[in-house]
Amino acid sequence: MAVQPRDVVEQYVKLVATGPISAILDLYAADAVVEDPIGTPERRGHEAIAELYQALEGLERTTELHTVKVAGNHAAASFTLVAVGNGHRMTLAPIDVMELNDEGKIVAMRAFWGPDDLKVVPA
Amino acid sequence: MAVQPRDVVEQYVKLVATGPISAILDLYAADAVVEDPIGTPERRGHEAIAELYQALEGLERTTELHTVKVAGNHAAASFTLVAVGNGHRMTLAPIDVMELNDEGKIVAMRAFWGPDDLKVVPA
Repeated sequence: MAVQPRDVVEQYVKLVATGPISAILDLYAADAVVEDPIGTPERRGHEAIAELYQALEGLERTTELHTVKVAGNHAAASFTLVAVGNGHRMTLAPIDVMELNDEGKIVAMRAFWGPDDLKVVPA
Repeated sequence: MAVQPRDVVEQYVKLVATGPISAILDLYAADAVVEDPIGTPERRGHEAIAELYQALEGLERTTELHTVKVAGNHAAASFTLVAVGNGHRMTLAPIDVMELNDEGKIVAMRAFWGPDDLKVVPA
């Protein structure tokens, strides 16, 4: 594929901090499937996936990408998201795994995180 | 499940360094499926999976576990393996994702790593 998975992951983590939801969604194929975190119902398609990111709207966000591993058109990324707003500071540190199609769009994303990886404190 | 996924991952990474292959295999269910790295043919069952670890036999090995994320009976782990022997020093830094069954045995493992994550130098 022309688009490199590593670039898509880096763009994704950057946009989770700085981007409008539309820009995040644009990284996904139209019929993409997201399970975030694993064990929650699958979200299929942009409209369903958008709900996941709408919770971030209006929050002051930063992200830090720790590591990316690429195997063919699959990638795994460890990163931390900090989101501040509404009197709280949320820190989420998942490993997201993604599968890309030949156009470099994300067709599947699954997020590995649990209670140990989410902290919410007054801010 | 009684066995915690985090403990299984920690045990796995420890045994990749110090364990005999039989101890590593004992972490896997009898019909487990392994794809390491993603994109290579699936190995199903202990006999096929053993081939993966036989390459490590006779090498001086150390591992370092960087991070583990657990979501229900799924886990993702970032770690580094260093194996020295036959005049070479190999460093492999994957993210492995695992699914466990209710008995805490690994039923599926997929390893995310590519050429960027494998270094072999004279030792």
